[in-house]
Amino acid sequence: MQRNAPLLSRIKTPRDLQELDFAGLNRLAAEIRELIIATVSRNGGHLASNLGVVELTIALHRVFDSPRDKIVWDVGHQCYTHKLLTGRFAAFGGLRRTGGIAGFPKYSESPHDVFNTGHASTAVSAALGLLAGDRILGNRNRVVAVIGDGALTGGLAYEALSHAGQLGLPLVVVLNDNKMSIGPNVGGLSKYLSRLSMKARYQSFRRKFDSMAKRIPYVGDLFYAAVVRLKRAVKAVFYTDNFFVDLGFEYVGPIEGHHIQQLEEVFRDVRKLDRPVVIHVITRKGKGYGFAEDDPGSYHGVSSFSVAEGLSGRRGGILFTEVFSAALVDVARRNPRVVAITAAMEKGTGLSPFRNRFPDRFFDVGIAEEHGVTFASGLAVRGFLPVVAIYSTFIQRAVDQVIHDTSLQRLPVLFVLDRAGFVSDDGETHQGLFDISLFRAVPGMTILAPAGAEELTAMLNWALAGPDFGRVSGPVMIRYPKALCPPEDPAFSLPLEWGRGVFIRKTGAPICIAFTGSLYSQVLEAAELLVTGDAGVAADLYNLRFLKPVDEDHLGDILSRYKLVVIAEEGARHSGFGEYVTELAMRRRCSAQILVLGVPDTFEALGRREELLRSNGLDARGIADSVIRILRGKTEFRRPGAVVRYRQGQTAGPSIL
Amino acid sequence: MQRNAPLLSRIKTPRDLQELDFAGLNRLAAEIRELIIATVSRNGGHLASNLGVVELTIALHRVFDSPRDKIVWDVGHQCYTHKLLTGRFAAFGGLRRTGGIAGFPKYSESPHDVFNTGHASTAVSAALGLLAGDRILGNRNRVVAVIGDGALTGGLAYEALSHAGQLGLPLVVVLNDNKMSIGPNVGGLSKYLSRLSMKARYQSFRRKFDSMAKRIPYVGDLFYAAVVRLKRAVKAVFYTDNFFVDLGFEYVGPIEGHHIQQLEEVFRDVRKLDRPVVIHVITRKGKGYGFAEDDPGSYHGVSSFSVAEGLSGRRGGILFTEVFSAALVDVARRNPRVVAITAAMEKGTGLSPFRNRFPDRFFDVGIAEEHGVTFASGLAVRGFLPVVAIYSTFIQRAVDQVIHDTSLQRLPVLFVLDRAGFVSDDGETHQGLFDISLFRAVPGMTILAPAGAEELTAMLNWALAGPDFGRVSGPVMIRYPKALCPPEDPAFSLPLEWGRGVFIRKTGAPICIAFTGSLYSQVLEAAELLVTGDAGVAADLYNLRFLKPVDEDHLGDILSRYKLVVIAEEGARHSGFGEYVTELAMRRRCSAQILVLGVPDTFEALGRREELLRSNGLDARGIADSVIRILRGKTEFRRPGAVVRYRQGQTAGPSIL
Repeated sequence: MQRNAPLLSRIKTPRDLQELDFAGLNRLAAEIRELIIATVSRNGGHLASNLGVVELTIALHRVFDSPRDKIVWDVGHQCYTHKLLTGRFAAFGGLRRTGGIAGFPKYSESPHDVFNTGHASTAVSAALGLLAGDRILGNRNRVVAVIGDGALTGGLAYEALSHAGQLGLPLVVVLNDNKMSIGPNVGGLSKYLSRLSMKARYQSFRRKFDSMAKRIPYVGDLFYAAVVRLKRAVKAVFYTDNFFVDLGFEYVGPIEGHHIQQLEEVFRDVRKLDRPVVIHVITRKGKGYGFAEDDPGSYHGVSSFSVAEGLSGRRGGILFTEVFSAALVDVARRNPRVVAITAAMEKGTGLSPFRNRFPDRFFDVGIAEEHGVTFASGLAVRGFLPVVAIYSTFIQRAVDQVIHDTSLQRLPVLFVLDRAGFVSDDGETHQGLFDISLFRAVPGMTILAPAGAEELTAMLNWALAGPDFGRVSGPVMIRYPKALCPPEDPAFSLPLEWGRGVFIRKTGAPICIAFTGSLYSQVLEAAELLVTGDAGVAADLYNLRFLKPVDEDHLGDILSRYKLVVIAEEGARHSGFGEYVTELAMRRRCSAQILVLGVPDTFEALGRREELLRSNGLDARGIADSVIRILRGKTEFRRPGAVVRYRQGQTAGPSIL
Repeated sequence: MQRNAPLLSRIKTPRDLQELDFAGLNRLAAEIRELIIATVSRNGGHLASNLGVVELTIALHRVFDSPRDKIVWDVGHQCYTHKLLTGRFAAFGGLRRTGGIAGFPKYSESPHDVFNTGHASTAVSAALGLLAGDRILGNRNRVVAVIGDGALTGGLAYEALSHAGQLGLPLVVVLNDNKMSIGPNVGGLSKYLSRLSMKARYQSFRRKFDSMAKRIPYVGDLFYAAVVRLKRAVKAVFYTDNFFVDLGFEYVGPIEGHHIQQLEEVFRDVRKLDRPVVIHVITRKGKGYGFAEDDPGSYHGVSSFSVAEGLSGRRGGILFTEVFSAALVDVARRNPRVVAITAAMEKGTGLSPFRNRFPDRFFDVGIAEEHGVTFASGLAVRGFLPVVAIYSTFIQRAVDQVIHDTSLQRLPVLFVLDRAGFVSDDGETHQGLFDISLFRAVPGMTILAPAGAEELTAMLNWALAGPDFGRVSGPVMIRYPKALCPPEDPAFSLPLEWGRGVFIRKTGAPICIAFTGSLYSQVLEAAELLVTGDAGVAADLYNLRFLKPVDEDHLGDILSRYKLVVIAEEGARHSGFGEYVTELAMRRRCSAQILVLGVPDTFEALGRREELLRSNGLDARGIADSVIRILRGKTEFRRPGAVVRYRQGQTAGPSIL
């Protein structure tokens, strides 16, 4: 890449930017843009959002003195330029690759990455904490939060703006307004703000008024209150209050976001303010890459693609997401009470066909998972069957709403958790590893994990129409990974029974591997490795289906039938399903040894899902090896003083057990 | 009570209100107020908030036709008048008592309680869901959300207002502005709004303008846009835009909240609107009871008190909260890096002494737990040791922030979870039963459960200064109940060791009861019952201290030393600590039988903590009985065909084991 980046390759720290004039900075922007497109086309990544903030990032680093001044990137999916300007040009080719640099800010990579992000709407809170800390320490540095208009729909951002307005510290909030992922309210607000052009006039008046006010002798609180009142009245005439002003901020904008010089001038002015300020910057997502400018939604987060031809069609196979997408439309056609809710994940969760077909029954609440869940609960009270489709990692935002508003009222809300389990490329902030642990504790919850397409469809139908489903029995969760469905197994079509799983393979082997659906392919292959490898041991396979509730008589019987039961779950080990099974086995005095395979506290997180399964011991090899280790460790199978050898090629009941 | 309530006793449904004139309604309000004061003085409850909305509730029920129209009460701690007007006058004496009516709305009590609440900021979301559902069904009823100014600081309320503004449905939001629990931003906004008295003038102009606009012939979108622009411009002069208008609401107010007739007139006007509207009502918390008006904070949620003399001093003993309160000031005096954050729980968590002593290091972010946690994470990045004090039930609001912003960055934030375990009187929404399950799954988390005052102090000091604590080792949680500390046990003062608990009693007995700190008194007494009762069996007692991480070698050794280990935890059984212990025992091949005692999915929730422990089998008797059941069930201890008799009076190693 370096061949095309003569300027960028010389930027080792942000201070090197001072050596370029504006013409040079614009050439630099072009180099950065080209490198981002080329790299993302190879490695995948967030394209449109990063292309939108090239000039904005350059201007920020020209004016603010990072890392002394601190820049906090909301979500973080726009930090590539920032990374390129802060010493990571050479490493950029390894973006999002195992062992390479992350697609999100990481303090472990650089002192310029001051706060790790990944989820939306956190930047103002974090920046305010940094600034409050600096002020207690007596530091005079500045802290900047860069937040998109989409993230502003999140309640967390509002809580933070409101607290910042109260504290009055000189926080700089850059509102990166690219009209995307935009809640129409914020859109309405932005449109309204765009019409304001009285900034200069107001500010000049304000300066005069302030200096005049200072000359008036102090005559007590009453007079001061009158001055404040007068100032506000004047402001109301000259400069209509807006959302940010109401919350206690100064407001500057809107400003064209691709004009480095203008941005720099505004930032220099703002840097002198001693109050919280919002700078409203208009940017264009995908700027500089035609395909992405025309369809920034599709180019938000992408896999590798051809720079010349744009995104190509997907490889063969069907995603769990697509199965859900079609099955939901199907059930909704038959049942008018089915409504769908998402939180800025319409495309990602596969709800677009539903929205197109049933626009009146579809609600995208914006980046507002908490509201989405409570809103759905209200719909459920009115007799609807709300389907809340949210990624596993983002439902973490609405745990209290799931408990307090849905579950304690036993409302029939169906939560569809896409991207449950390991998630490719996005790192630790996007892993869907906690849903089982978090929601197993929730009273009245049902948690289902399909292994394939037929099963997912059956679960969806069961949850939305099954006889056990209704106000009395409470919410249901269906969790599945961002992955292709495996080839259909006859067992996927077996009828769903309350609290029970199904055997994928049942040969009377002494070992059973019970698994959460997403690990079907892995355990299938693990069983092959076990039977054909040195171990030469057969294993039955049990697809759990229900992670809660469980027909304990049924599972207890299974636990009593085997010498070793392996629980393989794609989720956190702590508080996971495996711990429950061992407790059940203990309570029922089942004889089986239970081996729990899950994700440890310190997990590997950067890489493709397949790599992450492997590095966390949940690929076929890892599962098989764990079983073999247990077998070798079992006293009754160990021949003292001899190397353990197992017979090969046996399919059921090998003599070693 | 009925003797003093001649009017109220005749109100069986809200429709009966139509038979009273305004003079009668005012007498009714007086009766209601007297009954609320008398009942809360006996039963405890939320006093000030309920006294503030007597007239508001009467006016709402005069105008809106509940249950066809729906009224959703935010938090719900102001629903007493609503309950009295909707058929629960006779049952009101049993308020908050076991088997009586709840202090919060409950759909199981009445069709007028349309959505259960308890946590703040949910009403607008729920009401919007109800309304969206009704509109899909083609119903024309109205839905009202009543929300306090305090709850408006919550991001959930903002997300909901913003979505409501987008949908444009005729939602009625009553802003019950009592200037309490008020974030200064909202306060600032309210103050600003209070000055507006141009409502009438504006509305008259607006009517004329609208009718004029309608007469102008339609000439396409451009003209329409111009009209809208003009309207907004006019509005900006006549009626400065405010927060709610920015979000897409009509705004009416502020209105005096204790004038039934005026409230009724406004509600009748608003009922005709076909757009979302906010009615800003000014009420006085504690209205009509001098003590509560003068100090509404202390009279927010109260225990029983004397009507004539107000709140009296507390009974003897010291609360965990008070121990934390003093210990925090002590450690903060020595360490300037200690800062404290809470979310509108300053008094409840005992942070007032800290605030008084270190005002610059104290932050109350309002009802905004999510922001509180991310803000604290920002402070931690700057080298501070933030102490986030939040009730267990409310930390559920910030699960993602704890995971994403604190734990994944391994930041040294100390979470102090007050009211962990069973919580008296407030019902199922306020139970602190999920924190262990939720946060045990979180990578790098440390969870501590003190049994007494010395131990809590030691844990606080360890967390804030211990050698193992710092950026590398991540966040710590300390959980304790709203309860008096037990008399000091020498074991409470034993030094804290990483991952280890301490024996309270160790006699070589065959049974060990391991417990989360809050159950110290219960297990102590259970051990007495076991040894002195029919069972005649001794039990060692192990105070777990660390619920995560655990020194597994140490705990594994303990598990191997006993025949039966009971895990008694004041928290949800599912995903709880007990399941972890059984998995550990299985993994380590420990010989002990493990018995897990925790709170089941369907738990009893209304009553005092002691009653709830009993009804959930976690009082001394319940724990002892569970042990006895296990002993009787154990094959090796059962004499076939005979009644099981255990020797009495034995203190260690009874022969039956």
